[in-house]
Amino acid sequence: MIIDRLIDKINQMNNPTVVGLDPQMEFVPKGMSVLEFNTKVIDAIYDIVPAIKLQIAFYEALGLVGLEVYKQTIAYAKEKGMVVIADIKRGDIASTAQAYANAHIGERGDFCADFATINPYMGSDTVKSWLDNCKIYGKGVFVLVKTSNAGSGDFQDLIVGDKPLYEVVAQRTAEWGADMVGNHGYSTVAAVVGATHPQQLADLRAKLPHTFFLVPGYGVQGGTSADIRYAFDKKGGGAIINSSRGIITAHQNPEYEGLGFEEAIRDATLTMRNDLRSVLS
Amino acid sequence: MIIDRLIDKINQMNNPTVVGLDPQMEFVPKGMSVLEFNTKVIDAIYDIVPAIKLQIAFYEALGLVGLEVYKQTIAYAKEKGMVVIADIKRGDIASTAQAYANAHIGERGDFCADFATINPYMGSDTVKSWLDNCKIYGKGVFVLVKTSNAGSGDFQDLIVGDKPLYEVVAQRTAEWGADMVGNHGYSTVAAVVGATHPQQLADLRAKLPHTFFLVPGYGVQGGTSADIRYAFDKKGGGAIINSSRGIITAHQNPEYEGLGFEEAIRDATLTMRNDLRSVLS
Repeated sequence: MIIDRLIDKINQMNNPTVVGLDPQMEFVPKGMSVLEFNTKVIDAIYDIVPAIKLQIAFYEALGLVGLEVYKQTIAYAKEKGMVVIADIKRGDIASTAQAYANAHIGERGDFCADFATINPYMGSDTVKSWLDNCKIYGKGVFVLVKTSNAGSGDFQDLIVGDKPLYEVVAQRTAEWGADMVGNHGYSTVAAVVGATHPQQLADLRAKLPHTFFLVPGYGVQGGTSADIRYAFDKKGGGAIINSSRGIITAHQNPEYEGLGFEEAIRDATLTMRNDLRSVLS
Repeated sequence: MIIDRLIDKINQMNNPTVVGLDPQMEFVPKGMSVLEFNTKVIDAIYDIVPAIKLQIAFYEALGLVGLEVYKQTIAYAKEKGMVVIADIKRGDIASTAQAYANAHIGERGDFCADFATINPYMGSDTVKSWLDNCKIYGKGVFVLVKTSNAGSGDFQDLIVGDKPLYEVVAQRTAEWGADMVGNHGYSTVAAVVGATHPQQLADLRAKLPHTFFLVPGYGVQGGTSADIRYAFDKKGGGAIINSSRGIITAHQNPEYEGLGFEEAIRDATLTMRNDLRSVLS
């Protein structure tokens, strides 16, 4: 099961980090192509980071050329043994949902990753194709439960009966994944839970013992390792923390001045790893 | 304003129909490419239908080749004077939202359409980039308010205070579009409201006098013209009805046997137009 492979890699590397490859043009050094940028980042970190997350929006913004880079980056990261998370937040009905699932966590195809992030707003039936593909092709999903942005409360925090909407979604997510729990006790149907809400992280961790968390919001978005430790279980497992800009702009950060591109990226990654280790030990 | 252009075209053609170009492979006659299929559909209808809606999932499922067809289909439909709606249901935060908005309703680029459908689940701040692009580039959006699928009630119908969640989203949608109301009294910030819920259509129509509706669910999904008439205002305006499979599989429908590909597509389109006219007159 892909969730077991992810957890095994996290354990081997003792590093619950996923690096977000969201290449905005201003991050890319002059004279370097976006594909080169991505390749160099992967080269700098693949032996110390278990997974990479590609935010497809930044590739779509570059049109067909961008999506060619997206395809090649996925292929390269897989070649290097990394687990690949497609951050696509898709959600749609019936045959459309199936088309998206086949595109992103299907059997093969240009864009097929190991995991995809999905948006549950349209309802359970829109999630079914994704669950089917998880089973058929050994893939995984991260369901948007509680996001890290300031406005995430607008709808996600609205009270439904006796609990906020995101908790209803969280419970559904646990149900959807109940028959896909792997060897480590976590389901391949996982959840996105933002790092900017430590109390909510702690509540959800307690209520969803078999749901693995992808936690955005560390670093640039304001989440600290002290905040995100609530995402983890007692053994320090059950979550992976994303950092995008904090890592992939390290070469522009005065803190890493004097280092080459790859060295700066690697140093920032090690700093984050050590920060996470410090709260998990 | 793009909403005025859409409404003008609907009025000129006396046809509030948008045809969904969702080319699943089994719809495409042997020996025809997907691009040819799309081109022939557009040729068959562009003088009687104001707008076309492309469901990007079916193009993503074909990978880079599919997205090349997506790009060329948008260009061809624009060349033929049609309003192009990108059915992409994107939703994400901050710079990611901006990247998506630039990709799909930006100034230019491979995938730029006139309108995009967007998913509001992540909150108001995630909608802002779309609104900005509407203003800067004269584009429009359709916000997912109440979808047409059977499971749409799972979250959208949950009661928040004294009303269902979709009504909260509907009110927000009206607020987001309040400063972008065009000459016909409708905002360029529009809403998706499914045809399978006539009572909800009627309620929302009454509550949102300046919000234009895109209504999926007619035909194959079970919505009839009797159901969808509640989407319209007293003058028969304020909505456009989508049909995808009902139109683009007409050449496989025994009802249109003996007709050529383009004739069958056109006949099905005229049948739908006349059905809509019958309830609007």
